[in-house]
Parts: sequence; C-alpha cells; structure tokens
Amino acid sequence: MKDNEDLPDIQAQKPNYTYKLTRVGVTNVVKQIVVKRPDRKVILTPTINLFVDLPSIKKGSDLSRNIEIIEEIVEASSEKPCSSIESLAENIVKMLLKKHPYATHAEIEMVSDYFLEKKNPSGKKSVEKYKLFAKAMKNDSGIRKMIGVTVTGITVCPCAMETVRVTLIEKYPEQKEFLEKIPVVSHNQRNNTTIMIEVPEGYYIEANDLIDVAEKAMSSPTYEILKRKDEEEVVMRAHENPKFVEDVVRDALKEIVKKYSSFPKDTLITVRSESEESIHKHNAFAERVTTLGEILNGD
Amino acid sequence: MKDNEDLPDIQAQKPNYTYKLTRVGVTNVVKQIVVKRPDRKVILTPTINLFVDLPSIKKGSDLSRNIEIIEEIVEASSEKPCSSIESLAENIVKMLLKKHPYATHAEIEMVSDYFLEKKNPSGKKSVEKYKLFAKAMKNDSGIRKMIGVTVTGITVCPCAMETVRVTLIEKYPEQKEFLEKIPVVSHNQRNNTTIMIEVPEGYYIEANDLIDVAEKAMSSPTYEILKRKDEEEVVMRAHENPKFVEDVVRDALKEIVKKYSSFPKDTLITVRSESEESIHKHNAFAERVTTLGEILNGD
Amino acid sequence: MKDNEDLPDIQAQKPNYTYKLTRVGVTNVVKQIVVKRPDRKVILTPTINLFVDLPSIKKGSDLSRNIEIIEEIVEASSEKPCSSIESLAENIVKMLLKKHPYATHAEIEMVSDYFLEKKNPSGKKSVEKYKLFAKAMKNDSGIRKMIGVTVTGITVCPCAMETVRVTLIEKYPEQKEFLEKIPVVSHNQRNNTTIMIEVPEGYYIEANDLIDVAEKAMSSPTYEILKRKDEEEVVMRAHENPKFVEDVVRDALKEIVKKYSSFPKDTLITVRSESEESIHKHNAFAERVTTLGEILNGD
Amino acid sequence: MKDNEDLPDIQAQKPNYTYKLTRVGVTNVVKQIVVKRPDRKVILTPTINLFVDLPSIKKGSDLSRNIEIIEEIVEASSEKPCSSIESLAENIVKMLLKKHPYATHAEIEMVSDYFLEKKNPSGKKSVEKYKLFAKAMKNDSGIRKMIGVTVTGITVCPCAMETVRVTLIEKYPEQKEFLEKIPVVSHNQRNNTTIMIEVPEGYYIEANDLIDVAEKAMSSPTYEILKRKDEEEVVMRAHENPKFVEDVVRDALKEIVKKYSSFPKDTLITVRSESEESIHKHNAFAERVTTLGEILNGD
Repeated sequence: MKDNEDLPDIQAQKPNYTYKLTRVGVTNVVKQIVVKRPDRKVILTPTINLFVDLPSIKKGSDLSRNIEIIEEIVEASSEKPCSSIESLAENIVKMLLKKHPYATHAEIEMVSDYFLEKKNPSGKKSVEKYKLFAKAMKNDSGIRKMIGVTVTGITVCPCAMETVRVTLIEKYPEQKEFLEKIPVVSHNQRNNTTIMIEVPEGYYIEANDLIDVAEKAMSSPTYEILKRKDEEEVVMRAHENPKFVEDVVRDALKEIVKKYSSFPKDTLITVRSESEESIHKHNAFAERVTTLGEILNGD
Repeated sequence: MKDNEDLPDIQAQKPNYTYKLTRVGVTNVVKQIVVKRPDRKVILTPTINLFVDLPSIKKGSDLSRNIEIIEEIVEASSEKPCSSIESLAENIVKMLLKKHPYATHAEIEMVSDYFLEKKNPSGKKSVEKYKLFAKAMKNDSGIRKMIGVTVTGITVCPCAMETVRVTLIEKYPEQKEFLEKIPVVSHNQRNNTTIMIEVPEGYYIEANDLIDVAEKAMSSPTYEILKRKDEEEVVMRAHENPKFVEDVVRDALKEIVKKYSSFPKDTLITVRSESEESIHKHNAFAERVTTLGEILNGD
Repeated sequence: MKDNEDLPDIQAQKPNYTYKLTRVGVTNVVKQIVVKRPDRKVILTPTINLFVDLPSIKKGSDLSRNIEIIEEIVEASSEKPCSSIESLAENIVKMLLKKHPYATHAEIEMVSDYFLEKKNPSGKKSVEKYKLFAKAMKNDSGIRKMIGVTVTGITVCPCAMETVRVTLIEKYPEQKEFLEKIPVVSHNQRNNTTIMIEVPEGYYIEANDLIDVAEKAMSSPTYEILKRKDEEEVVMRAHENPKFVEDVVRDALKEIVKKYSSFPKDTLITVRSESEESIHKHNAFAERVTTLGEILNGD
Repeated sequence: MKDNEDLPDIQAQKPNYTYKLTRVGVTNVVKQIVVKRPDRKVILTPTINLFVDLPSIKKGSDLSRNIEIIEEIVEASSEKPCSSIESLAENIVKMLLKKHPYATHAEIEMVSDYFLEKKNPSGKKSVEKYKLFAKAMKNDSGIRKMIGVTVTGITVCPCAMETVRVTLIEKYPEQKEFLEKIPVVSHNQRNNTTIMIEVPEGYYIEANDLIDVAEKAMSSPTYEILKRKDEEEVVMRAHENPKFVEDVVRDALKEIVKKYSSFPKDTLITVRSESEESIHKHNAFAERVTTLGEILNGD
C-alpha cells in the first residue's frame, strides 16, 4: 500500500489556465468549541468558512489542512479554552498561513448561536439567544479582526403612533391633552439588529457589551419568559420608545462612539437594523458602514 | 452504441432484503406552470415532491418517469393550462400509477408562491404574496386531494391590551371611561395562518376564498403599500380586533363551516396559525386538525 | 402596582366560537442543554416545539408556562444532566400536563446538532456532525416517545455503474473480464438518511447505534478529514457498495430488525433516505413507515 | 378625516443623533415580473432588496415610495415587458433617486429562479432551473449594473481519481496501460457555480451565455431527465473532465475573457464555485474577484 507521500499530488500541478484565485477554502464546517469567559465556560457551535488565496501556478489548495487546523483548535479548546471567539479566529488565520506556505492572505468567518442569562422586568432569569460572530483576515500588513452580534428585540413605529394620535384627537378633541400624554397604539414587530466592530491589536471588546448596546437602541429588549405584569411593562416601555430602524442604527452608533472613543480612528464599524414589519410582508432595513473617526466627527 | 433497452435494468432486479417501501420518488423538483383561472392566467412556480410505493421484489423505482410526467404536464400547461393546482395534482397522481404499473399508491405535494391583487384601505391596488399548496393521493379506493393556502397578516395580543388598560386606569383613574372605550397599546406581530381543506370528488374550492377566510380571521390583513392614512387604518383595525393564535384558528373554522357546510362530513380540515411574537424570540402556535362533521357538531 | 393575580386573565375567558384545539404551544424555542452519557457530557442546542390541547371553553393556553418548564429543565440539566434527549422529552411532556391542568394531550419535538468522534480509514480522529431528535406524546393512555438521527454519508448509483460497465465492455471487449472485476465510474453524492424508532416503556435505544446503522446502510460514511490515502479508501469502499436510496432504507431496516428484535411488535419505525443527486438538480427519496412486527414478518 | 398631507410627517423630523445612514430601504419584497426576451416572454419571481442613503438631518426614509416604484414597474411589465432583468434594475435605481430627492445613492439587488429549456445528451428537451440575479447602483458619477447567474452542475475530483488509479495499478500491474487510458472511479457531487459581470453602459450581456460558460466550466452540466443511456453519457463526460472548484473558476474566467474581450478593462468580474463534497459534510469553495483587465493581463 502506498503512503500519502507516494500518491500523486494533483493539487501541486500547474493548472490549465494560470489565473491566481482570491479565496479557496472550505465552507459550512460546524464544530462545537469551548470559550472561557471571565465568569464561565461558554459552548459555541459556530458554522465556519475559511479561505486562503492561491497562486497562479498551483492547481489546487490543500483543503484537508484547513479541517486539520480546525480539529486541532477544537481539541485544544476542550482542555485549554480560548478566551474569546475573535482570538480563536486570530489563531486560526495565523495557522492557515503557516500550513499553506504558498498563500499570502488568509481569512475566516464564524457565526454561532450564543446564550446569555438576562433578567426580565420582574427580575426573573431567562436564558436569551443571540448570534455571535467573528471574522479575521491576515496578510503581509498584519491581522484585522472583527467581532459582531445580532440581537432580536422589538421596535414600535413612531410614525403610525403619531398618525393614530392625530386621528384619535380628531375623534375625541376633548381628550387632546390626555392623548398627548400617553402612548397610543402603533404597529410593532420583531427587529434584528447587528453590530460589528473591528478589534484593533491591543484592544478588547466584550460581546456582551455589544448586546447591551443593541438592546438599548431598540424600543425594548425581548424575553423568553414574561408573566402578565412583565408583558405589560415590556409593551409600555417599547411604546414609550418608538423607533424607526433608522433610529435604532443611530442610537447604537451614539453608544458605540461613547464606549469605544479611545479606539483608533480607522476602527471599522457596521450597524444594521432590520424590522420584520407587522403591517407588511416585507422588512424595513437601515445600515451604516463607517469608521469610528467619522462618527466622532459627527458625520 | 447500445440503446436504453439493451442496457442493464438494475431497478428491476430483486433487492438484497425484500421489504416493500412506503414512498419512493423525487423531491425538490421546481417547475413553472400556467394555471388558467376564470379571469386570468396565473403563473405558479411550485416545488414538487412526488412518490409511488415499491413492492418488495423490485430493487428500484424508475425515477426518471416521474420527471417525464412533470415535464409533459408543464409543456401541456403552456398551451392548454390546467384549471387549478389541485386538478394538476390529480392528473399527476393518475399518470404516476399508469407509468409505474407495479405501484398501488401515488402521491404528490406542491407548494408555490401565489400573487393576488388586493386593495389597501384607501383603495390603492397592490399585489400581495401568498403560499398556495396542493396534495393528492391515489390508490385502489380512489383519489383524495387537498388544497391549501398560507397567508401572512397581523395579530394584536388581547391579553397584553387588557393588562395595559388596567394599568393605565390605575394610573389615570379619572380616565377610566375613556380608556375602556379606545384600543390601548399591546404587542402585535407578523402572523402566518394556514388553511388546508380536502376537495371531495365533484366539489370545488376557490383558493382565493381560503385567503379571504384567513385574512378575516387575523386582526387585519397586511399590505405592501400603505400611505400614512392607510397605515393608521390598518393599525386601528388590528387593535379593534385583538386575536390570540387560538382565536385566529377558531374564527377561521367558523367561516369554513359556514362556507363549506354542504361538503361531505368526512372532509378533512386543518387550520394552523403561528405568530412571530414581537415580545419573544419564539413563536406562538395553534392548530386544529379535524373533519367538517366535527366542526358542524360544534366540537 | 397590580400583581399578576390582579391582572385580567384573558386566556381563561370563553372564546367567541367554542371549538376545541388540537395543539397550542410555542415553536422555535432554542436552548442549550447538558445530557450525561455513560462516557461524557454532551452539549445539545435543540430547537424545541411543544404543545398541549385546549378545551373548547378556554380562549387561550397559558403559553408562558411552557417556557418556564423549559427554563427549569435547562437550569436543572447543568447541575444534574438528563441521561438522554428522549428522557428529557418525556420529563417535559409530564410537566406540561401538570402545568396545564385543562389539557389531556401534550407533545414535544426537539432537534439538535450532535457531534460524535469518529475514526477515518487511517484511524485519525475527527468530530463528525449529525442531527439528533426526539419526540414525546402523553395522554390518558400513556406516553409514547421516539428517538431519531439524521446521518450524512455518500451513495454511489448502482444503475449508472452497470450501464457504464456495459458501455466500456462494448468499447474494450478484450477487457471484459477485468471490467467485470473492478468498480467502474458512476455518479455519487451526499445522502441524508434518517432513522426514527419508538422507545417503548422500559426499553432503551442508544442514538450512537442508530448512527452506526445509518452509516453502514449507505455506500460509505463520510469524514471531515481525509488525507489522500483515506480519500482513496472511502471512494473505493463506496464504489464497492453502490446503493440506491431504496437499498439504503432496506439495509437499515434489516439491521434494525436484528438489533431490536426483542422490542414490542408495535414499535414504530421510520427509515428515510434522500440523495442530493449529482447528475440532477432534484433529490431521490425513499421511505418506509412501519412497525417492528411488519419487518419481522418480512413485509 | 385627515388626508395624508395633514398627518404628521415624522420621517421629515430631525433625528436625536444626526448621523447620516449608508443604506435605508426595504428587503425581502417578492414580485412576479415579465421580461421580454428576443424569442419569448420570461416570468421571473425576484426577491428584491432596495435602498437609498439618508442625510443626517432626516429621521426616516419614505419607505412606501420604494414599494410604489416596484408596483409601478410590475404593472408596466405586464403590458410592456422590460428587455432584461438588469435594465429593470437600472430603471428602478433611476426612479429611486427621483422619488427620494434627499438621496445621493440608490441601489437594488434582485435574485430569481430562472428556467431554460436544454437538451440532454440524447436530444430530449427538459426545462432546467437556474438562479438569475441583477444589481444596480446609481450616484452622481453614474450607474453601475451587474448581471449574474448561479448554475448547478457536477464536478468529479481529479485528485481522488489519480489516487485510485495509482492504487489500482499497484493491485493490477498488468493492466497499467488500460488503467491509464480509462477514467477510474472518484468522488463527484453537486456543484454551484456563480458568474457575475458588470454590464458597462452601451454593452450587453446575455444571461444564457453566462449559463453556458458555467456549464462548460464544470465537469458536466446536469439534467432533470436522463434515461439510462443519457445517464451513462453524463457520468462518462464528467469523469473525462475531472475538475477541482479551482479549475471551474479558472476555466470560466478563460471563457469570459474570450467572450467579453472588447469590454472596458475595469469591468468587474466575480466567479465562484462551491462543491457539496460527497465525501465530506462540508463544501469546497473557490472564488476570483477581479476586473477584465487583470484577466486579460493573465494575472
């Protein structure tokens, strides 16, 4: 029986057309990984895509090496957990360039469900689900890495609320003063807000903080367990904070600039908010792609 | 070159273990089909699964015949369109049993986007999207066929509305009378309601009627285009009709029993309603699986 | 401030139309749960749907109780893990009927990614991903519970292989003997095979065994890491075991009947196999829905 | 009753935090649209996302205008069909900037199933399914538009084939010459290849040509209907053209550079190929993001 070394290495051959390739790798790899947080171990189940570039003279990339790297990391993580998902991403892109000596660029994307204990309005604990993601890219000029979260909450439409208010006042003019004081009915719905920030070398971002920023930017966070009194409080809080998707993005940007003002000016920031409109079959969407510097300048 | 007839027929061989099979066929076939309605031609793009049973002594089902049947029907439909999706389903199961002489049972499931022009509160037309589906089964004892729709609308929670009302009255006792008169804030969200009914031999069900039943059973239909005045009207109408998913199912059942009371008592009926709760990350769900007879009896 | 008890209980009211409902509950609840296996702790992240029935005179089901049950179970599982996913399902349906005293039927469905260490042909370990699911139903006549797995592997088409063989022999008649000895080219593809078995009271089914049955029934299991020599072995093994989806289902049934012959005759069994055909854009599908008794009888 | 004009215009207010937004719009709008091709009418059902930017001083974008534009276009298309999906995209971004006078940037993304009649190896017609997509962006410096297709076909792994060949020759050394002449077994699988090209002002790209380029770049196109002889021919053709995902991308680039060599050098080109590996649970992926000029230079 021949060994691996004696078997033909087709990947090393010259391709028919010698164009270089931007990204070659594996997608849809799912693994369970232990991450150690200051206060607890967290189990993540990320879906992982990872890539290196391929020079023009090489027919194929050695894809099995990508999976070997992931398996090593997974195995290591159960004994000596990584401190964060973005440091994991960083370790992997470093190993990618070592294991693919012909590559000059490596990148990884990871996205996982993430569970966090929250307290609902009456103080009862429930475990809420979020999306946590990380990206890292490495080339000659260094490593860039990003961390992000997607948070599900509720938005109440400010426009419909004011339209309803005007209509109610027209119908009940004697109640004008009262109707201007209370929140009136509007449409509200599930909203998914995503915050993604670059983590510059030497800086640290706590994912739970990004979740807090997103939850404060929406009309209200939502909870898996709400008894009647809690439900009333969430509904009232949400209606006292009506928000367009545009407002959610801007309010999150305001918090981010406060919290991370000491970060380098070229730190990349993306905030995106999408409402699954209850009065339409389509979604409303707002997004800002920017740098910390632009936001600090008030742009 | 050998012809098909001279090539080995592996499917016809005896299998290693002679167990009969319940359903063998193809899934995820997508085709564009023309259906002729009284007033217009409708283009559907159904995803189709179709199956026959397989006797114990036959190793394989002749799967390419299934696709040939679909292609024939598709081609025929462009020149001589079918009158409905469920008559299409019926034709296909009949052909399945002819083309698979060893089979005693044939079935098909089809689901397609379906577009229908609706008028929003101010009378402006917009084309709304629904799901339309059909099933048919044929064996020795005859054909059974079903038609169904899934409709997206809005539900307003009646429980949160009353909890909020009580809390507002507690805070503004002098406004008790007024607060009992107007709809107050609640949570509301996208709701998907499915109605599926058997179409007995000799009877006919118009899919658009099922869409109407579902839209009336929800707090309000929703529309792709709503100017400010329309939006206010949809929001008010929805809040004047707060509905649990349970209410949506029961209200739809009430309409169905009215509309189809002349149908045979064993006509199968399924009504299902799922709300994408705006205050939770999970959904609320209610379902009734029944016969017309049971509902006529008030069960 | 009013307490929960003082707030209106809309769910307890009489509905407009007093039809009973088959299933009312919550869907798409995702939680992280610890399950204790003989040799290790397993972390599952199931998506959970759970339901009870609703009598005709009750407007709404108390949905928040469903989530409270799940939260309790999750919290308990981190300290005192359940022994299996189906015992978890059993515990939950029991609690559902206690917490919903008006209900006579309770059911739960759970599906989770499941990771298991396997050895590839050269003995290298890799962690492979499966789907694990459980169902449980409880009513007056007792509890029924099911466990299931979905396994991804490879199938090689036996029909195309013989057609190619005949064609090659026609072209190279002098090589007839040799061509009849070696596997020749065919199409092969990803296959997803599902086995679901009822777990009768007092019996136990190990999910890992079902995974083994499914992997043996396909042309070959697949692995995340395959160096060149391994890849050759998987490809050869698969081509030495060409299988229709029909064969996969029958071979799995044969193993099941061997392994669980001591189970009650009315034990429910479903085996399903779906190949993502490489030569088509649609899938091939085969399924048997049966009882152990039928299979023992050779039907 | 107040008219729209008398109702409060919340969108026009100043936001709390005056950050401009990159993209505000609607997503997941699905419509049925008629496109007129030289030889036939084509019905597309695109999912549409469309956006404009939002200046810092405006609280909200007037989202209902986006849907009005789409409805107008849809209605117009049934009487006077557009000539192509990318000209439709172009018309919509132009209208977006007119209807949102505060915006300086507009963009649209559309993706639709697309059906095309093909002939299988024996000349039998079958309707095959593809994905067709278009993007357009407009700002002060003009319009850029892209057209793209995603094509499902088959790839056979060249590496496994040579490894198997070497192993077979080792086992049957007397058959070395013959084994070097015929294709031997390998793994093969469904592959999805995407080609996206910019359509510069004054130039035209036929989507069907891009489908041809993608199908030729894979090991073989696939077909919905294949009788035994056809199946053998597709399997043989695929094994005579074993391709890595890297080869598929490079071969498509070669064809593109031939076909569109007269286009401007800065024409954007993306080619991507993803194989749903039959021997793994993950996918293999290769991509080149480039300009025509780079490819013409042989980079």
